[in-house]
Amino acid sequence: MGKSAEVVATEKRTRAAVEAYVKAWATNDRAALLSVFAEDAQWFDPVGTPAWVGRARIGEFWDQAHAGGSQLEPRVHRIVVCGNEAILLFKMVVRHPGGGGMALEVCDHMTVNERGQIQLAKAFWDEGCMASPD
Amino acid sequence: MGKSAEVVATEKRTRAAVEAYVKAWATNDRAALLSVFAEDAQWFDPVGTPAWVGRARIGEFWDQAHAGGSQLEPRVHRIVVCGNEAILLFKMVVRHPGGGGMALEVCDHMTVNERGQIQLAKAFWDEGCMASPD
Repeated sequence: MGKSAEVVATEKRTRAAVEAYVKAWATNDRAALLSVFAEDAQWFDPVGTPAWVGRARIGEFWDQAHAGGSQLEPRVHRIVVCGNEAILLFKMVVRHPGGGGMALEVCDHMTVNERGQIQLAKAFWDEGCMASPD
Repeated sequence: MGKSAEVVATEKRTRAAVEAYVKAWATNDRAALLSVFAEDAQWFDPVGTPAWVGRARIGEFWDQAHAGGSQLEPRVHRIVVCGNEAILLFKMVVRHPGGGGMALEVCDHMTVNERGQIQLAKAFWDEGCMASPD
């Protein structure tokens, strides 16, 4: 492919950010999740709804996702890295403490800044992406 | 979900554009492919390389993809629609007339304008997305 050393370094940084994002969900580590994002990051989840802007608001999003003691388990299908942008395909399995939950197929589009932080995250999912947890 | 009639109409238009895009590849219809794009559309394929800008350049991209009589067969995994944006997950199976070819897992991010045309297409794929055709 003949990628320059700069592109190789950028793509390494991009992949590391996406992997840190996944690990934060997998280990239920709120602080780690917030540290993956830029202070003024924007997160659309799903795309078409208003963004969560800034770490404080992203923390609120995290808290909503975990409300009532729900457990979230990300299962990665594929990470695609193109420069400072990446696609993360994964299934988020959500289990509620009283039983039940759901599995959501998600396509995240991430843009990573020069400090290796997620600057923009856009989660794509719609009604066709929802199923019961297995 | 309580989507407004406007959002429902937008998402119908978005999905129709993505489906027309897939159909154009599946039926090897160059004119149909071009008509799916806005006159001043931008297409990054893959993201990280310079855009093909405008229908004439997009036609060149099409011609490159079909050079030497290669046959391209898109196999759709999933279309996710969020407002006027969509994700298309598919495998493009490329077969060369002399034998051989490849299968490429692609994640396309499409933005569709108010006339139902693709205004911006971004194809995400990297080395990990390539395989032999089955």
